[in-house]
Amino acid sequence: MRVLEIAGLLGGTYEGDGERDIVAAAPLEAAGAAEIAFVGSGKARREAAASAAGCLVAPPDLELAGRTLIRVKNPRAAFAEAVRRLHPPAPRPRGIHPTAVVAESAQLGRDVSVAAYAVVGERCLVGEGCLIGPHCVLGDEVVIGAHSTLHARVTLYPRVNVGARAVIHSGAVLGADGFGYVFEDGRYTAFPQIGRLLVGDDVEIGANTTIDRAALGATVIEDGVKLDNLIHIGHNCRVGKHVVIAAQTGIAGGSVIEHHAVIGGQVGLGDNVTIQSGAVLGSKCGVLPGKIIKGGGIVYWGVPAKPLKEYLESLALMAKLPELRRAVKELQARLQGGG
Amino acid sequence: MRVLEIAGLLGGTYEGDGERDIVAAAPLEAAGAAEIAFVGSGKARREAAASAAGCLVAPPDLELAGRTLIRVKNPRAAFAEAVRRLHPPAPRPRGIHPTAVVAESAQLGRDVSVAAYAVVGERCLVGEGCLIGPHCVLGDEVVIGAHSTLHARVTLYPRVNVGARAVIHSGAVLGADGFGYVFEDGRYTAFPQIGRLLVGDDVEIGANTTIDRAALGATVIEDGVKLDNLIHIGHNCRVGKHVVIAAQTGIAGGSVIEHHAVIGGQVGLGDNVTIQSGAVLGSKCGVLPGKIIKGGGIVYWGVPAKPLKEYLESLALMAKLPELRRAVKELQARLQGGG
Amino acid sequence: MRVLEIAGLLGGTYEGDGERDIVAAAPLEAAGAAEIAFVGSGKARREAAASAAGCLVAPPDLELAGRTLIRVKNPRAAFAEAVRRLHPPAPRPRGIHPTAVVAESAQLGRDVSVAAYAVVGERCLVGEGCLIGPHCVLGDEVVIGAHSTLHARVTLYPRVNVGARAVIHSGAVLGADGFGYVFEDGRYTAFPQIGRLLVGDDVEIGANTTIDRAALGATVIEDGVKLDNLIHIGHNCRVGKHVVIAAQTGIAGGSVIEHHAVIGGQVGLGDNVTIQSGAVLGSKCGVLPGKIIKGGGIVYWGVPAKPLKEYLESLALMAKLPELRRAVKELQARLQGGG
Repeated sequence: MRVLEIAGLLGGTYEGDGERDIVAAAPLEAAGAAEIAFVGSGKARREAAASAAGCLVAPPDLELAGRTLIRVKNPRAAFAEAVRRLHPPAPRPRGIHPTAVVAESAQLGRDVSVAAYAVVGERCLVGEGCLIGPHCVLGDEVVIGAHSTLHARVTLYPRVNVGARAVIHSGAVLGADGFGYVFEDGRYTAFPQIGRLLVGDDVEIGANTTIDRAALGATVIEDGVKLDNLIHIGHNCRVGKHVVIAAQTGIAGGSVIEHHAVIGGQVGLGDNVTIQSGAVLGSKCGVLPGKIIKGGGIVYWGVPAKPLKEYLESLALMAKLPELRRAVKELQARLQGGG
Repeated sequence: MRVLEIAGLLGGTYEGDGERDIVAAAPLEAAGAAEIAFVGSGKARREAAASAAGCLVAPPDLELAGRTLIRVKNPRAAFAEAVRRLHPPAPRPRGIHPTAVVAESAQLGRDVSVAAYAVVGERCLVGEGCLIGPHCVLGDEVVIGAHSTLHARVTLYPRVNVGARAVIHSGAVLGADGFGYVFEDGRYTAFPQIGRLLVGDDVEIGANTTIDRAALGATVIEDGVKLDNLIHIGHNCRVGKHVVIAAQTGIAGGSVIEHHAVIGGQVGLGDNVTIQSGAVLGSKCGVLPGKIIKGGGIVYWGVPAKPLKEYLESLALMAKLPELRRAVKELQARLQGGG
Repeated sequence: MRVLEIAGLLGGTYEGDGERDIVAAAPLEAAGAAEIAFVGSGKARREAAASAAGCLVAPPDLELAGRTLIRVKNPRAAFAEAVRRLHPPAPRPRGIHPTAVVAESAQLGRDVSVAAYAVVGERCLVGEGCLIGPHCVLGDEVVIGAHSTLHARVTLYPRVNVGARAVIHSGAVLGADGFGYVFEDGRYTAFPQIGRLLVGDDVEIGANTTIDRAALGATVIEDGVKLDNLIHIGHNCRVGKHVVIAAQTGIAGGSVIEHHAVIGGQVGLGDNVTIQSGAVLGSKCGVLPGKIIKGGGIVYWGVPAKPLKEYLESLALMAKLPELRRAVKELQARLQGGG
């Protein structure tokens, strides 16, 4: 595509050679004369002048003489759109593979593609335009909304509901039994997990992530949630709209995460925790069972999690312990010595 | 079922309308007139009066006038039994799916069901009544005891032994190579992992959990163990009877966990650790290699793990550091000022 | 094999009965008269005399009268070789299983084995001698080098490159989308992940481990890397030659780990971290985004990670806090009291 076409697409203005042909997107430091890159912040702004990119997507205030540019308010977001246009996804597979096992009672919408060896159970409802990848297993009465994509080897246990435009990566397991037991006479027996798992629209779920269904009632993942790989979400949790959670975080049963919270990697939430809207939990932090974490943009770190200000103060106090000990020894010496 | 029938089943006594018909189990706060709920402890006891449940499973001492109740000693356990009766599991699949690949030398007991695309290797022994889910892979010479259930996509490496009445959730991998290497001349070569993995009876294993076989000898999971999702158990570990472990915990090689220990989520045990019988490890705690953790109901928190009392004392001392610093500064000022 | 033959194989010298027949390898404490065990260090040296092993692989300096021994410089490494000889791997499967779905445009080298229900995509290149296990899914244009082994149920997303002699365990997912989003107007949209994942030679990857492809450019795993189970490696990371990483560690995007670093279990690295060559990260430690961890054999512990010496000093200072408080109280009392 030509630079001036890309500029039009991104709603930006161009400078320099509008007729230059761009064939691919590339990282700033590696882009060549027929490639487009973007200038984010900080380090990128300093490196922009040295980039060999044929076209740069740049913020309005960056001074770059003699370059071909497209000026936009949010270079990263605009660049993402350019990438989507220059690198459209591979043509989607079509049709039902002859080896797919699809129950007669299952209903597949228009233009659904089911790949090799996928298994679709009794009375499933699969919305139009869905892609079910190789080796996926949909248990009985699973419902999936339109235009959702399941990559290879995704397991949906019976009666799981997934909304529209979901993207679920390989190895994810949705709807397994919650981890609930009754302890009697020195042994554990399973507390029956007869609840549901309900996933909203525009949800993305990473590879090998597990989300358990509820004991009673429902585990709920609301619209727009993005989950990274190897995450565990326990039974009866509710994850609010547009929450983002990074890899390997674990959330115990009954917890509630309100909309737009941001949760780092390897975070651990005990059961029945509430994370209020807009809270930010730093990686590896831990929240004890039953706690309420206030939202509104406060950032939390540590185990147990504290607001960043307090956490940094603790670290600073710990760092000054040697100095404190010396001060005390000195006071002891002075008092010993007389007066 | 009628209330009086349920009461008989649960070994309890009923009050109120014994003829009332109950059709389903539900959570306390959502149950309706034809549903049964239970009153556990604390919060539930306060909410019981407001519940609209047609029948409550309640402890002997709870005062609830004018309600239909079933009195039992352990409401949660009794309720679990009621759930099992009111919500029996779906009829089990039967037979060997035509697409299942079952080696001729494999022996399947009476009434074993093998689902679509499962693969059963040479000389496997599958006990009566087992359910092998879609896409399961049983390596050569795997042995599974009677009435065990493997959900979709479980992998058992060659020669893994699983006992009776096991429940293994989707994506679990049993018997992969332990993580052992020999470092020589600047590179690592694998230490051959020729040992076994032996799993007892009544064991439940969560989704995407991995348990490695031994280098030599065996990794052993004893009867009644319950493992949550995304757990890692390293080679040559022994997990004792009726141990419970929550999600994402990792146990390095050679560790021993004695019977009835309780281990939280995201716990990390180094190699060759011993956790004695009845110890309770709080979530996210860590135990250094070779340590012995005393049992008998002691609760441990923190990294490195300490008994709760000590752990809370550390937290309290840390919280008082600002006060301690001020006290020292004040002492310094007084000594400066004279005397 | 006879002891004298094994000694020749291991490049060692034997003592005692060179004609003794050895049929298997076993652990030191359990080995019997026809078995071979090795004497490592510490505890094993003390236990060696009590072992009933027919032959011991021992270091040059260990005094053991009246035993049949093979003396070598590195007993563990030599023993690994003996194990490989006494317990050769099962005969490898051969050929393409009739149920494997292999695209016509895919090219399989000489002596490649593809097991039941595996799926090999368009234009894949699979090097000679590879073993593709049951239910593996190779996306379009995947390239795998010679003599690599994929166990059951491994997913390689399109365009992933794997080198020669790789071993990939069950449930691993290579090349899923990196976790990158653009946040605009209160919602997240995926930043397209069009980069590559390149894995070198002699790499081993554990069960259920996930490695994401890059947003742009490449995620790179270099030659000789060994990854345990349930590890997460984010987009655009570079893991250097002969790095070893234990279970459940997570590495956020853009991080660089230089050759021969050693990383424990449940470690968390933020994004854009650099771990220098030869650094050793203890289990459960955490490194903040953007940090540079110096190498050369320094051992790090804690969150945030510090050199072991400093980490132990912090722990010691914390342990002495009660004593410090008492000292301050005493000083306060003395100043109160007069003079």
